[in-house]
Amino acid sequence: MDIMEKALKAHEEWGGKLEINSKVAIKDKEALSVAYTPGVAKPCLEIQENPARSYDLTARHNLVAVITDGTAVLGLGDIGPLAAMPVMEGKCALFREFAGVNAFPVCVSSKDPDEFIRTVELISGSFGGINLEDISAPRCFEIERRLKKLLDIPVFHDDQHGTAIVATAAMLNACKMAGKEMSDLKIVINGAGAAGVAIAEMLLSFGVKEILMLNSKGIICEGDKLTSEALTSLSQRTNRAKIRGGLAEAMVGADVFIGVSKPNLVTQDMVCSMNEKPFIFAMANPVPEIMPEDAKAAGAFVIGTGRSDFPNQINNVLAFPGIFKGALSVRASDITENMKRAAALAIAGCVSEDQLCPECVIPNPFDPQVSEAVAKAVAEAAVADGVARI
Amino acid sequence: MDIMEKALKAHEEWGGKLEINSKVAIKDKEALSVAYTPGVAKPCLEIQENPARSYDLTARHNLVAVITDGTAVLGLGDIGPLAAMPVMEGKCALFREFAGVNAFPVCVSSKDPDEFIRTVELISGSFGGINLEDISAPRCFEIERRLKKLLDIPVFHDDQHGTAIVATAAMLNACKMAGKEMSDLKIVINGAGAAGVAIAEMLLSFGVKEILMLNSKGIICEGDKLTSEALTSLSQRTNRAKIRGGLAEAMVGADVFIGVSKPNLVTQDMVCSMNEKPFIFAMANPVPEIMPEDAKAAGAFVIGTGRSDFPNQINNVLAFPGIFKGALSVRASDITENMKRAAALAIAGCVSEDQLCPECVIPNPFDPQVSEAVAKAVAEAAVADGVARI
Repeated sequence: MDIMEKALKAHEEWGGKLEINSKVAIKDKEALSVAYTPGVAKPCLEIQENPARSYDLTARHNLVAVITDGTAVLGLGDIGPLAAMPVMEGKCALFREFAGVNAFPVCVSSKDPDEFIRTVELISGSFGGINLEDISAPRCFEIERRLKKLLDIPVFHDDQHGTAIVATAAMLNACKMAGKEMSDLKIVINGAGAAGVAIAEMLLSFGVKEILMLNSKGIICEGDKLTSEALTSLSQRTNRAKIRGGLAEAMVGADVFIGVSKPNLVTQDMVCSMNEKPFIFAMANPVPEIMPEDAKAAGAFVIGTGRSDFPNQINNVLAFPGIFKGALSVRASDITENMKRAAALAIAGCVSEDQLCPECVIPNPFDPQVSEAVAKAVAEAAVADGVARI
Repeated sequence: MDIMEKALKAHEEWGGKLEINSKVAIKDKEALSVAYTPGVAKPCLEIQENPARSYDLTARHNLVAVITDGTAVLGLGDIGPLAAMPVMEGKCALFREFAGVNAFPVCVSSKDPDEFIRTVELISGSFGGINLEDISAPRCFEIERRLKKLLDIPVFHDDQHGTAIVATAAMLNACKMAGKEMSDLKIVINGAGAAGVAIAEMLLSFGVKEILMLNSKGIICEGDKLTSEALTSLSQRTNRAKIRGGLAEAMVGADVFIGVSKPNLVTQDMVCSMNEKPFIFAMANPVPEIMPEDAKAAGAFVIGTGRSDFPNQINNVLAFPGIFKGALSVRASDITENMKRAAALAIAGCVSEDQLCPECVIPNPFDPQVSEAVAKAVAEAAVADGVARI
């Protein structure tokens, strides 16, 4: 049975991957009067008097909403909010399994950004954080930006920043291996959607100076008519030489290829045209931009993909559980750029000097120390940035 | 330590009464690829093709949202959505403990009915049913009515119908004890809010002919300027003799007093003025409209309150867990009047002939057979009414 049929059968057996349990056994009058009426009136009044008490007296201190509009689900695209729910439930299960964070999946049946934002705003009081998920670009940029402003709890679009953080962690370790500096790298990012934009932003914040971004028309350049403010802004801070052309032109002399695009776009000739010891992060799923064996044969030094059956899996699960765990642990009001950078450094740091090799620039997703290390680093960065509230 | 301080301390220790668990252990690559990517794509596509499959492949088949705007919380009133959360969590814990139903608390931070309704509509795809909770009258009537029309899943305002169902169950058994018929009863309902209106409607549907309803100004009468359509409609079907006056006037010759109002409004003289073998359901919380010992001394035959420390506790927990369990078990698209009536009859039926006595017209809330019996009756009524989808 292939993995798809196996997954379908498993989902039928599970009938949902989550269950909501009471931490309190309510088996007699006494328990009922403490957990519910009349006793529950007291914690209610405490919160009415001091809203911050909701973190002590309700589940929100360790509760994340995983929210989607179903417009960009996995590689499936706009399959709608209902059909997106198995992914959202899976994400929530990962929050629980990898970091002990409670997470609840919410699908919002509206493609109107205003309506989506207002809905999330109105229900946000039930949660300690908002993980936006599988929302298509360019609407995802506006939605995240506006929600971050509106809400006093962390808002994090994982498809952007989770991917950016893990890819950056891999690159930090790849640099160590290759003896390169981030500030010297020439990086090609193929794919100007949610993940591509966030990766570019994070790399710039790590001191990278030369980035070429490509959308479906080729290398983007200042002055191009682009689909979002986020991309327009990036076009002013990348491709300073105003190079025109397609992927083949971009790859010449590059140190790094990052693919968040489509299968099989990268040829061995392109890899051969890169600088020495090139890194290839080919994250298209399920089929990467170039297969690892082909990239290796063409001289790639470090190769990462989105897949679990090859070395160096760029898997968001290395980031989001620990990031929210850390943010929640200090009741952060936001997830700042420094917190994201701290997460990338912490993930990179989970690969020890003896483990580090071209096939191991990124930790194993099931390494239990990762979410702990990420949470600790993120919490410290939140305190340093003044967004911690505990 | 009194119950309030005990409850506060317990809530601080719990840090939230709910936790969300993964039914699936995700400890290795294989599990990850079945529960999450790439395997999860298959159940997603199944649902995209046939939305009804979301009941098989996600948690919604056994998942209720407990949703409030925080405007009428317990006896506390409009304490706001955040402060309402301990009650909502408690309600969710009861769903789980009493009927094995998963329930998740959502507070919506808007007092605008349009906005509240739209928010619930937009997130409803994540759930199999909506339990509205602690929403003030008269807005609660419009909110429920419109949501029932908009959504294809059950919507149930428990403060209305849960109370009505349990009070009716108590009355059915009280009639049996007293040798009275529902259709002969003269009933006084003091309090024209959410619960009062729903109780009146349910009693009318059980064949009661004579009801006097009182709001804070006295007996309501056709032609009065009233606060809601729901109440105006009731004014046309109650008080046919167009009696004017206050509670003392209403009580003369009545068979039943139902209080969903304020403490200590009923005097012993009023009870003495009632018909023989009168029933007193004094449900104001925490202090009833008349204390049971005083009612008894004045000749009350059956006495019920909202309190667990007196006999005959009119407790919604007898109704809502089984109602949703039953509705969900047949994937009901609605909770119909017949389903509510079936619930009342099932609850009444849980008191056996040998148990039945003036101090035991209603089952013990912790009797495990109740939610089972209610669920079965509700599911059968759903099938009979053509709202079952399984």
